Amino acid sequence: MTGIKLAVIGYGGMGSYHVETILKNETAIEVVGIYDILTDRKEAAAEKGWYCFSDLEELLADEAVEAVLIATPNDSHKDLAVTALRAGKHVVCEKPVTLNVAELDEILSVAEETGNIFMVHQNRRWDPDFLIIRELYKKQQIGELFQIESRVHGGNGIPGDWRHLKKHGGGMVLDWGVHLFDQLLWLIDSPIKACYSDLSYILGDEVDDGFMVHLIFENGVRALIEVGTTNYVNLPRWYVKGTAGTAKIEDWDLSGEVIRATGKEQQTPKPIQAGVGLTKTMAPPSKEATEALTMPEVLETFPSFYQNFYEVVRQGAEPIVKNEEVRYVLELIESILSKGEQSSVDNCQEKLLRDIDAAEMKRETSKALV
Amino acid sequence: MTGIKLAVIGYGGMGSYHVETILKNETAIEVVGIYDILTDRKEAAAEKGWYCFSDLEELLADEAVEAVLIATPNDSHKDLAVTALRAGKHVVCEKPVTLNVAELDEILSVAEETGNIFMVHQNRRWDPDFLIIRELYKKQQIGELFQIESRVHGGNGIPGDWRHLKKHGGGMVLDWGVHLFDQLLWLIDSPIKACYSDLSYILGDEVDDGFMVHLIFENGVRALIEVGTTNYVNLPRWYVKGTAGTAKIEDWDLSGEVIRATGKEQQTPKPIQAGVGLTKTMAPPSKEATEALTMPEVLETFPSFYQNFYEVVRQGAEPIVKNEEVRYVLELIESILSKGEQSSVDNCQEKLLRDIDAAEMKRETSKALV
Repeated sequence: MTGIKLAVIGYGGMGSYHVETILKNETAIEVVGIYDILTDRKEAAAEKGWYCFSDLEELLADEAVEAVLIATPNDSHKDLAVTALRAGKHVVCEKPVTLNVAELDEILSVAEETGNIFMVHQNRRWDPDFLIIRELYKKQQIGELFQIESRVHGGNGIPGDWRHLKKHGGGMVLDWGVHLFDQLLWLIDSPIKACYSDLSYILGDEVDDGFMVHLIFENGVRALIEVGTTNYVNLPRWYVKGTAGTAKIEDWDLSGEVIRATGKEQQTPKPIQAGVGLTKTMAPPSKEATEALTMPEVLETFPSFYQNFYEVVRQGAEPIVKNEEVRYVLELIESILSKGEQSSVDNCQEKLLRDIDAAEMKRETSKALV
Repeated sequence: MTGIKLAVIGYGGMGSYHVETILKNETAIEVVGIYDILTDRKEAAAEKGWYCFSDLEELLADEAVEAVLIATPNDSHKDLAVTALRAGKHVVCEKPVTLNVAELDEILSVAEETGNIFMVHQNRRWDPDFLIIRELYKKQQIGELFQIESRVHGGNGIPGDWRHLKKHGGGMVLDWGVHLFDQLLWLIDSPIKACYSDLSYILGDEVDDGFMVHLIFENGVRALIEVGTTNYVNLPRWYVKGTAGTAKIEDWDLSGEVIRATGKEQQTPKPIQAGVGLTKTMAPPSKEATEALTMPEVLETFPSFYQNFYEVVRQGAEPIVKNEEVRYVLELIESILSKGEQSSVDNCQEKLLRDIDAAEMKRETSKALV
């Protein structure tokens, strides 16, 4: 097959990774050139042997270019996408697609009007760790999953330059959050009933350096999504509970545990010493009550993102990453960010103001034990 | 010294553990007899050589009895405590002290009126794992702690009989929750600003079989408290983040990690492969950026619960477990339980009702990839 002739706009971290690592292995795509506004990035692309367009006009006027990849800072996605679609190009856009739903809707209406394809590179739907969780959710090896905890923890703070700035769409909700929400909302085929969020501003940036979001779905599933950039010890990437077991994936290496309840009548668990007390509740289940399963293999296969993009453009196939799904994730993100720093304080269960008296009492009297 | 002569009311799981394990080692206490309404529990106590009171009246009329320990189902604490205080006894009460604040206030007013001592056995303030976290919080080996996650996970469901029933004060918020909240609110000397909670009803009991509670304190500290009884794989008992590091205590054995940021200028972390993408943000910090500390030892010592009880009764010392602290915890619990099953749904950030349309769209179109 002849790959789609694609030009890349933005040869920064993601753009160059895209070109040098992903696209080189894709027969569905033929990279025909690069455009970047920065001289050093142009030079870097030229050094790799890529043709560099002198400006955006040249790129868009080039009839050999069928599609563009937009891999620029987040706040520039909308204008570039609209311009490229109007110039007759199909568009692949890096995530997060735009800074808000209104921007996305503008793109989508231009895509509809022009008949050109617009797809967002939500590549982490292909992550092996996520696909294992998806397998557990669909095949129910440990029963119906009713609690899904998805975390990424790092200790390096927010990377790079524009990712620290609000106007460019920085912050972790838009950076890693969009991946984790996209995975989850793609997986769970039920509307969101409730959302609680707490953003973190430890590093003193104007954007969030992490967050915790708790979602409740109409079907009863709970999800905890957490991103941290000030974590020097990591909690597991995934922790999920099913009606007949629990699974944990520690890290990107897919190490972890899948424990299933056998359903065999278990002996009363033996109490264990826990701190200064005994506990039966928190004792390990008796031996016959559980069994360890091997981590499921993912047998289901589907085309790569770019293979699918090719099939959508050339054959009218259905996109794997659908724009209405992207829009739904962005609605959630917009709602979380609009609450900002005060989200959880202003909107939580109860302010407990009536407890202020008790708290005052506590402050005055809780110093005895030192 | 001559120990306080104490009679035990309730020789069930906690009562018998109390008598046979804790009190035998306490020179501050001399157990003088047992009272239980159940014949088989009376016989069990008698077999161990304890004097068994034939009824409560006999116990309360016995002038040799200075104090009672109440270790009965939770809904009976209030009446027993009030009766014992009025009969001139000091009272130690098992946790949770009562089912609600009104009951506790009734007890406290009788204690004040009679001048007798009333103390609640919040014994987990003495748990070594908790005392390590307290040490980290006070001594700031990894900076100021701003995020504290406290979890207990078990896979045995709710134990016993009455703990399944609402009218007896069953459920995990009142069982393990009261310990975890007590530890936390004792530790953090700042009023609660906000509370979000989600109770779990997986086992089909009328009471909660676990919960997740997120607290925000006036001083900015966040706490996540979680209890689960359907967890076949456990997350760490403690996970805490400080401004200069992270610590984790895995289990009751106190294994874990304490990692401190050195503050040395670190090299840009090397991106790692994470799923199908690369990440610098979630890459391990460069080697010189962090160092492992040994788990802190707890050097601060304070009297045991019963030694303190002795000193309070005999010497007018200040109680370590103060009734206003117990009341504050109970206020929090009452607020969480009053929201019940619907807590998080009715009271969360946003219902996202405007997303229903998008969700409908999603349901109709998200089946392509199978």
